[in-house]
Amino acid sequence: MKDRKLLMIPGPIEFTPEVLRAMGMPTTSHVAPNFIEVFGQALERLRQVFLCPGGQPFVIAGSGTLAMDTAAANLVEPGDRALVVNTGVFGDRFAAILERYGAAVTQVRTPAIGDAPALEEVEAALKQGGYKLMTVTHVDTSTGVRTDVKGLAALGRAHGTLSVVDGVCAVAGEEMRQEEWGIDLALTASQKAIGTPPGLALVMVGPRAMEAFRSRKSPVGTYYADWTLWLPIMEAYEARRPAYFGTPPVNLIWALNVSLGQILDEGLEARFARHRRLSDAFKAAIAALGMQQVPVSPDKMATTLTAPYYPDGVDSKLLGYVNQAGAILAGGLHAAIKERYFRIGHMGAVSASDILSTVGAIEQGLVQVGYGFKPGVGLAAAQETLIRNS
Amino acid sequence: MKDRKLLMIPGPIEFTPEVLRAMGMPTTSHVAPNFIEVFGQALERLRQVFLCPGGQPFVIAGSGTLAMDTAAANLVEPGDRALVVNTGVFGDRFAAILERYGAAVTQVRTPAIGDAPALEEVEAALKQGGYKLMTVTHVDTSTGVRTDVKGLAALGRAHGTLSVVDGVCAVAGEEMRQEEWGIDLALTASQKAIGTPPGLALVMVGPRAMEAFRSRKSPVGTYYADWTLWLPIMEAYEARRPAYFGTPPVNLIWALNVSLGQILDEGLEARFARHRRLSDAFKAAIAALGMQQVPVSPDKMATTLTAPYYPDGVDSKLLGYVNQAGAILAGGLHAAIKERYFRIGHMGAVSASDILSTVGAIEQGLVQVGYGFKPGVGLAAAQETLIRNS
Repeated sequence: MKDRKLLMIPGPIEFTPEVLRAMGMPTTSHVAPNFIEVFGQALERLRQVFLCPGGQPFVIAGSGTLAMDTAAANLVEPGDRALVVNTGVFGDRFAAILERYGAAVTQVRTPAIGDAPALEEVEAALKQGGYKLMTVTHVDTSTGVRTDVKGLAALGRAHGTLSVVDGVCAVAGEEMRQEEWGIDLALTASQKAIGTPPGLALVMVGPRAMEAFRSRKSPVGTYYADWTLWLPIMEAYEARRPAYFGTPPVNLIWALNVSLGQILDEGLEARFARHRRLSDAFKAAIAALGMQQVPVSPDKMATTLTAPYYPDGVDSKLLGYVNQAGAILAGGLHAAIKERYFRIGHMGAVSASDILSTVGAIEQGLVQVGYGFKPGVGLAAAQETLIRNS
Repeated sequence: MKDRKLLMIPGPIEFTPEVLRAMGMPTTSHVAPNFIEVFGQALERLRQVFLCPGGQPFVIAGSGTLAMDTAAANLVEPGDRALVVNTGVFGDRFAAILERYGAAVTQVRTPAIGDAPALEEVEAALKQGGYKLMTVTHVDTSTGVRTDVKGLAALGRAHGTLSVVDGVCAVAGEEMRQEEWGIDLALTASQKAIGTPPGLALVMVGPRAMEAFRSRKSPVGTYYADWTLWLPIMEAYEARRPAYFGTPPVNLIWALNVSLGQILDEGLEARFARHRRLSDAFKAAIAALGMQQVPVSPDKMATTLTAPYYPDGVDSKLLGYVNQAGAILAGGLHAAIKERYFRIGHMGAVSASDILSTVGAIEQGLVQVGYGFKPGVGLAAAQETLIRNS
């Protein structure tokens, strides 16, 4: 169904054999003692992976958009003011979701695609006061732009605004210390750096966000994403008691627990460092091949993915040749520049071998489309960076 | 993770090896040509399985409750009147979901647990007029009660009320002919008779329901379940074009397509007949063992599951012994009688061997708890029915 080509898109990614084995095992009952233990353990491990010992995890069948939906639906009441720090498509999406639940949304944007608002701009907005929450996309999958989540969360804290971090393309890949940085809610989806096939929305709610939820005056606007209904279930599984609201996606949760175990075995500090090293090597190759990136400066570049512009005279036909050469990459997603750039995910179980294979496949593709460059120059740059940082 | 014990609960069920293999395969991109083909094929096959050639299918990551959520959220506008034909826990749930989206809900209930409202009672309610939609639980998983969906849908049609069928424990097991019977929306979850591990909400929307959705005056109350966002995605995959809104649960959809292929290879008429034969055999065994059932009469009994009361002097400890003897059964779910009954699912890939094994395990459990009966009497009754109907 998938041959041995490398899946190097910003999710779903390459999963480990152990995770895939868990996916394909005979399904247990959702109240079997061993499944209760696994679900409980996965919830505990999520706290460790989010670096949020005091958080309340939620694991619900759905996509990353459901995770965003739960954040907005459970924290916002009609008329609440919300600030969206917009760095691409997923900032637009969070604004739309917040408005759906009655929030009055203000957005801080930059004129240039690939840039992120300066802390000063966000602070100026927050100073006007009255924002119940602020959303930040840690890594916008559409642009590869990474925001300064630590700085933004500190601003939120200083101005009494809850910080909600969309970590879909970031959690377990980008450095994120939820509790230490004062992030009130962080969320992701299973198929990104968490390393589990798509189908799980993962949310970690800190104490202040939980308190805001508990002191709501109006019912949550959506039924399926209402924490009122899921909280007793999460608490029960963590207490190793059977419980039922909706049938949990059993195989995906077995797989999630395997992947979280692998993440913690590696250790988060080692994992952050590995992602940085591999990203640096890949970006060095992209630069050596003469390609610019969508993020406007290195400090705005994600470590989980790279978003290069095609070189002059090259278009999206390149991706077909790269695919033939063994690596599956993603096209553009931001409507304004969709045809001008492409995207490579390098997160989760990604290795130095994957980076070299992918750079090699891109070089082979560039030869096919007639781009003038010295074959091997990308590989050499990647290798130099890998060795320097080993 | 699961040993060779039979999982005979009303979902998740035993899945075929081919479905489990698809679950555990290396994940493809959600826009890979072969995945687009598989998703498109799965949508087409769903129309055949729901017997609804003119329907619009939706496949979204989530539990069966999400399928109910999408039905209510997309069809109801605040102030609309809705009628709930209540036969158990899932009627209560549909009422709660409808109210969440602003519906004024009227329920038709029966005083007795295990009964279903007569068509005349429902008709009397519908005659008062003004109901935009009526929900019916085809098989209430909590009680094992099956409703007369054909008769109820005809009443809905006669009175200009949309009929919405919660087929979570029914579709692809119980006879249901969506288009012929005039059902405007039917929904289910993957882990029941559809035969795919949990994690997919499946909805089939007929033309009148789609028209009601299209003529809404207010936005849909939830973001994640809003058909406005998913419809272009479903249309694109069916047209074999790549599209993106939220990342689809790739492995689950590969598995779904395998299972739908197996259902269509068997043929729906043969599948309905197999479910009836196995259910009749199992229920004959339950009767021969001296147990009553929660549904008050044979015409109210589901064919996808059986809900027996424990015999006098026996309680839920029985289930532990049955488990040791090789079959995993479910406890009660309806709060009012939770401790007095248990539930056995027999749907999907279930076979005559599974029925006999399960009856055998129940007999062994009954011996362990000291229940007085002649061992083998249940097996003989099941076998007699199997042979008579073969």
